[in-house]
Amino acid sequence: MKTIGIADTTFARYDMYGSVVDELNSIGTGFDVKRYTVPGIKDLAIAVQKLIGDGCDLVLALGMPGPEPIDKQCADQASRALLNVELKHNVHVLEVFVHEDEADNDRELGRLADNRSREHAVNAYDLLFRQDRLQRMAGTGQREGHPDAEPIR
Amino acid sequence: MKTIGIADTTFARYDMYGSVVDELNSIGTGFDVKRYTVPGIKDLAIAVQKLIGDGCDLVLALGMPGPEPIDKQCADQASRALLNVELKHNVHVLEVFVHEDEADNDRELGRLADNRSREHAVNAYDLLFRQDRLQRMAGTGQREGHPDAEPIR
Amino acid sequence: MKTIGIADTTFARYDMYGSVVDELNSIGTGFDVKRYTVPGIKDLAIAVQKLIGDGCDLVLALGMPGPEPIDKQCADQASRALLNVELKHNVHVLEVFVHEDEADNDRELGRLADNRSREHAVNAYDLLFRQDRLQRMAGTGQREGHPDAEPIR
Amino acid sequence: MKTIGIADTTFARYDMYGSVVDELNSIGTGFDVKRYTVPGIKDLAIAVQKLIGDGCDLVLALGMPGPEPIDKQCADQASRALLNVELKHNVHVLEVFVHEDEADNDRELGRLADNRSREHAVNAYDLLFRQDRLQRMAGTGQREGHPDAEPIR
Amino acid sequence: MKTIGIADTTFARYDMYGSVVDELNSIGTGFDVKRYTVPGIKDLAIAVQKLIGDGCDLVLALGMPGPEPIDKQCADQASRALLNVELKHNVHVLEVFVHEDEADNDRELGRLADNRSREHAVNAYDLLFRQDRLQRMAGTGQREGHPDAEPIR
Repeated sequence: MKTIGIADTTFARYDMYGSVVDELNSIGTGFDVKRYTVPGIKDLAIAVQKLIGDGCDLVLALGMPGPEPIDKQCADQASRALLNVELKHNVHVLEVFVHEDEADNDRELGRLADNRSREHAVNAYDLLFRQDRLQRMAGTGQREGHPDAEPIR
Repeated sequence: MKTIGIADTTFARYDMYGSVVDELNSIGTGFDVKRYTVPGIKDLAIAVQKLIGDGCDLVLALGMPGPEPIDKQCADQASRALLNVELKHNVHVLEVFVHEDEADNDRELGRLADNRSREHAVNAYDLLFRQDRLQRMAGTGQREGHPDAEPIR
Repeated sequence: MKTIGIADTTFARYDMYGSVVDELNSIGTGFDVKRYTVPGIKDLAIAVQKLIGDGCDLVLALGMPGPEPIDKQCADQASRALLNVELKHNVHVLEVFVHEDEADNDRELGRLADNRSREHAVNAYDLLFRQDRLQRMAGTGQREGHPDAEPIR
Repeated sequence: MKTIGIADTTFARYDMYGSVVDELNSIGTGFDVKRYTVPGIKDLAIAVQKLIGDGCDLVLALGMPGPEPIDKQCADQASRALLNVELKHNVHVLEVFVHEDEADNDRELGRLADNRSREHAVNAYDLLFRQDRLQRMAGTGQREGHPDAEPIR
Repeated sequence: MKTIGIADTTFARYDMYGSVVDELNSIGTGFDVKRYTVPGIKDLAIAVQKLIGDGCDLVLALGMPGPEPIDKQCADQASRALLNVELKHNVHVLEVFVHEDEADNDRELGRLADNRSREHAVNAYDLLFRQDRLQRMAGTGQREGHPDAEPIR
């Protein structure tokens, strides 16, 4: 039995947590889910660390950075902090960020947030339970949220 | 009984400390406040660390970066140092920065500094005493200081 | 007997792992290879750390960052995390990144990915087995993937 | 009795050390001064660390970054390293940098370097001996080297 | 007897190692030299760490970053990693980087690489054997490779 942590924010405009949990449950079993909600993306790193301290074997960090330059900088700070936590505890942390300017309107943005969350839920499951599946897809241009890229031979 | 630390600067042009304490007292009880004042935002990280060493269960770091590129860089350095301290000690640190160019005039800037300080005081209280409240607001587009964003369904 | 780790991604569009292993085998013997595949370049640092934890004496981290500004930022985050892991464990980690905008078309990109992977495989072998060879080439303008530069006397 | 460390560089074009010591002596007593001179601003962090290892209770790091983009980047690297040292040892480190392009001519630059050094000497003294003074000035727009900003009520 | 480490790269186009050793020998005695050659500037930090692990009392890190934006980013990553190693081990690490776009042609570039290497060799010697000399030159506008700047009184 594994424990999957999910950290999310009140800043995000879409319930990415719902998408991740729904997808995880549709893939398989063998895991519990723990959740920790914080105000913004800069708080995700400590939320992740607390989830790891609580026994999580892998954590997904969900966030939706805004479109302004200062938001980009905050996202960068948050990303690097997530990497630090991941390496400090040697536990996989999947950053699932959807930037508000990746979509032209709210409907598209919602769909992107849902898709990316679901595809990273699959990555989480693969990292924990079926690493051979990742290995078979190595170098094949997989993308999360957007269509996959073409592999080059 | 919890202890909430507040680090602030002589560089800031508004008494954000006053707003935070006033708001905290209007929300509830069960906490003490400790304060540490430093010259500028780059000194906030060590102030926070000293407050944590002094027993604080959560710290708010209050600052008002200037509008120049060099000020932005200083703010970025300060932010990353705050994240480092937070992760090192596993204690929530809420960065409450008001950038001088977020407002068109001093009156607006003062109002923004007051609002943001108060909304982060609520976040601090929620993180310490009512995490379920944060979870209920996850993915709903909460903003601090500015009007909230629209949630996407 | 040395162990060479190879971390790669499902995001990459070319099988750089194949090139590295093929080249390593053509150079010499005295080593085993271990592989760890992750979704994207930001996951490479922890993959490398897990490979080191698994006994690797040197690790190659293979990735193909996309062409957008956000991809460049991700690559930068990934690079710095790789450096952190390398220094933490005192084990050589060779970053082998091929940026999608380094080539004009897929065919050229594939050739560049293959060449760079192979030349870094040689670097890996040299670092482990023949450091004197590196010393003899010091200051001579060696490049990986692109033609070498002219030495200045 | 406290010990105040001062790290400075041969790269700087003004004797900021002289200004700091002169100002410190004019404020009060109760401290000794130790000095460590290095080539450039990137060497300041280790100089500070060595001063802390030598028993300093607070360190001022004095530097004058050049005006080119590469100089700005070096200054940023130096600043972040100073923050790291400060947090690692939990000792206040005051960064006193004067950027060459902050002034229009050498005379102005010299005056700015002198003023900023002196005002940070006061900050150093306050942090060590009279923290209540800093607290009274919190949120009042203090600036070092340039005229203070207007407080907002 | 002190040990001076020198880390250099096969990527560099000039034999900076030769310049450093020649200059060191012309200044004085009392030291041994150890060398570690790596492929590129990103590998310098671990080379330095291995030299420190091997007993070096100070290390010079020699590199020649290319002129492209990606090269600048690599140089920045390498610089920060060098600072991390320096602070972790509390041993002076002198970064001696010559950026390819600092000179107009190869001849000038070679001369710059030679000069800068030699002037940093002097810095290395001063840090180890005659710190008073550095102190006497504090605030006097010393430059390495380029002509010194004017001191301001």
